[in-house]
Amino acid sequence: MTDSEFSLQLDVEWPKIPGNLADVENEITGWYEKLLAGKVPGKDFLGWLNWPLEKHEALLDNINTMASEIQEEADYFVSAGIGGSYLGARTVIEALKAPEVFLNEKPRVLWAGHNISGSYHKTLLEKIEDGSVYINAISKSGTTTETAIAFRLLREKLKEKYSSSEMARRIIVTTSSDRGALIEAAQENGYRSLEIPDNIGGRFSVFTAVGLLPAAVAGVDIKELLAGARAMADRLNSSSDGAREAIHYAATRNAFYRNGGRLEILASFYPELSSLGKWWQQLFGESEGKDGKGLYPAAVNFSTDLHSLGQYIQEGPPDRMETFLCLGEETDTIKVPHSSSSSDGLDYLAGRTLSEINSQALIATRSAHVSGGVPAVSIHLPRLNSAWLGALLYFFQFSCALSALGLGVNPFNQPGVEAYKTNMYRLLGKPGFN
Amino acid sequence: MTDSEFSLQLDVEWPKIPGNLADVENEITGWYEKLLAGKVPGKDFLGWLNWPLEKHEALLDNINTMASEIQEEADYFVSAGIGGSYLGARTVIEALKAPEVFLNEKPRVLWAGHNISGSYHKTLLEKIEDGSVYINAISKSGTTTETAIAFRLLREKLKEKYSSSEMARRIIVTTSSDRGALIEAAQENGYRSLEIPDNIGGRFSVFTAVGLLPAAVAGVDIKELLAGARAMADRLNSSSDGAREAIHYAATRNAFYRNGGRLEILASFYPELSSLGKWWQQLFGESEGKDGKGLYPAAVNFSTDLHSLGQYIQEGPPDRMETFLCLGEETDTIKVPHSSSSSDGLDYLAGRTLSEINSQALIATRSAHVSGGVPAVSIHLPRLNSAWLGALLYFFQFSCALSALGLGVNPFNQPGVEAYKTNMYRLLGKPGFN
Repeated sequence: MTDSEFSLQLDVEWPKIPGNLADVENEITGWYEKLLAGKVPGKDFLGWLNWPLEKHEALLDNINTMASEIQEEADYFVSAGIGGSYLGARTVIEALKAPEVFLNEKPRVLWAGHNISGSYHKTLLEKIEDGSVYINAISKSGTTTETAIAFRLLREKLKEKYSSSEMARRIIVTTSSDRGALIEAAQENGYRSLEIPDNIGGRFSVFTAVGLLPAAVAGVDIKELLAGARAMADRLNSSSDGAREAIHYAATRNAFYRNGGRLEILASFYPELSSLGKWWQQLFGESEGKDGKGLYPAAVNFSTDLHSLGQYIQEGPPDRMETFLCLGEETDTIKVPHSSSSSDGLDYLAGRTLSEINSQALIATRSAHVSGGVPAVSIHLPRLNSAWLGALLYFFQFSCALSALGLGVNPFNQPGVEAYKTNMYRLLGKPGFN
Repeated sequence: MTDSEFSLQLDVEWPKIPGNLADVENEITGWYEKLLAGKVPGKDFLGWLNWPLEKHEALLDNINTMASEIQEEADYFVSAGIGGSYLGARTVIEALKAPEVFLNEKPRVLWAGHNISGSYHKTLLEKIEDGSVYINAISKSGTTTETAIAFRLLREKLKEKYSSSEMARRIIVTTSSDRGALIEAAQENGYRSLEIPDNIGGRFSVFTAVGLLPAAVAGVDIKELLAGARAMADRLNSSSDGAREAIHYAATRNAFYRNGGRLEILASFYPELSSLGKWWQQLFGESEGKDGKGLYPAAVNFSTDLHSLGQYIQEGPPDRMETFLCLGEETDTIKVPHSSSSSDGLDYLAGRTLSEINSQALIATRSAHVSGGVPAVSIHLPRLNSAWLGALLYFFQFSCALSALGLGVNPFNQPGVEAYKTNMYRLLGKPGFN
């Protein structure tokens, strides 16, 4: 593939173009130069920027070898992680394999440690009672409460099932390479480990082992995923002209916010992109929502949610913008059948593909919402495959960094996440938190 | 059960109590009287109000008989519907049986007709290729595009598998009793049918056959569900004092909105309530989001989303409130295991139940967010069972009607949903839409 193949098409329809848009674009272009020079708040966490441009052959081969072993041996692969240690992998797997409800192949990837629900983890442990199990615990520090609880439960279950050497072979930790509870446990017990680079934050970690091992186990072509990210990184890091779509997206969001906008809705018409919406929510919400600022990132699945949130988006308060993910038509799809009875009023669609109808629904929705006063960004991908998904995820990471910088906040910290943790530790009597 | 058992506890913590709260409560109490007198906008759609108070023995027995037959015979029960013809049933099934990922029993309830994705419906049709299949098509008019497309596809699949009499036995339509495409198809082909009352809108239809048949097929005790709704309806319809929690919730939302609030976040710490969040979003978003008004209804799953949207909620703009669903502790749950290694810093939790830790996480989060300027509503249920879920869903319907009336809009229409449909029909060349 060449760089030019991976230029995302992005266009924006404004019901009324903000007067300050050109100024904001200039500001964001300024932040673009600073980002590339590493002269921005949070500069110790810029590892994601060049990550896809670096050589990772040995890592990818190592992960693929592990994944082959797991595919051969495991019935269940339980990934224990939360936030950025969870959403990236889930996004990639669902986008490229199938919506969650249809994921059933062996090994079945199951998620743990992303909540503290007793009934959830009880059901999970029952489910993996029979069958061959591998565990991947993912946490940079190894002390993330949710993940650490799940890891204790899962290790106890494995202890019932396997000898200690067999158990050690079935646990892989993805964590900081030089400190923390998980790397210590790995060294002590002989678990295999994969590294989370210190200079890459959770929500920017999908292209590291955090996202890649679960994805590879589920059968995703991770080399293609990273190749797509690399092609996009090449473009975006080349010049402000190469990055014009990312700059334009960041400037659009900032201009909208400065003119009273409060909410951005990411709209997808593809059920397999449901988790991508959640990944995008973390990326933008956690990067921007600080110092009393930021658009609330809401994700919707259309046309499903046109019949729930569509009314609000169409006629609610004038403080929402919408970003549409637009895919080229599917080649392999099904058609509306002809019918002997036409009382359902559907004859005009008979013989046409669902993909075509879905594409028209997107165009119809966007135009209706723009008429209702909602600015619309459209991001066009010709198709959804590993490489294009990699390109899209990198594009969002890069745009998000620019957008948060334009807002005047540090894109790479999350000080507000500590508040509930500190309260919780105190309530639960954690040593040192009284 | 008695009425008093089903009084929900509801409390509100304000970082700063709005000066107009008492006035708004009075206004909402005025709307309460008008609602009960039927003197409100949209009064032709008040059938939901007394529905649980009416006798439905014959309907419930009929549905339970169908459900028993389907449980005995079917491997797959495909429910085709969208919006209110989809979310209520899914909410009830997940809340009372298990989160979607763990739903595997026979018959497996699968969802269709809630999107126009070719790959989704292709995968669905492949999945039901082998095995015994029943179909439930749900649409008041029978011409909802998404549902009608899915119903054509599903009928074609059944035609391949079964004789026409056998096929007829396996299709149940839930629709208007006297007009529309589905009732016509039923009469023509001998399908069984269940009624959607004309005076109950989609988002208020969970307690009709729309929600009850799929729920019963999944093994939900629908008599208990309706008994809980009835007990709550009894209280709320008795007097403004009996309805004080609903009035208080509606007044809180209105006071917050009038003081610049833009967003309400429904927060649950229970993965099985994920679809309840989506049902609640439709209920409030479609009832309120019109005439440029309304709080955007966002639903989150904690603690999962504390690691994605938590930062924004804690430190974002001062325009969000949060409503917490609080359940009593589970009785049947699991404990954090003791471990020979304490490097994960978790020894202080060893031996304690996940349910207790989850409850403390809720309290910690609420207190952190209130400190961050976020008003918090807490709705307490002693436990999650069929009756309490019925009570909660009715409580939300009632509060939502009051809240939308307080906003000055018709709670029971959805004029904005037509805009994209009209565009879509025109683009696709539907007769009469050029």
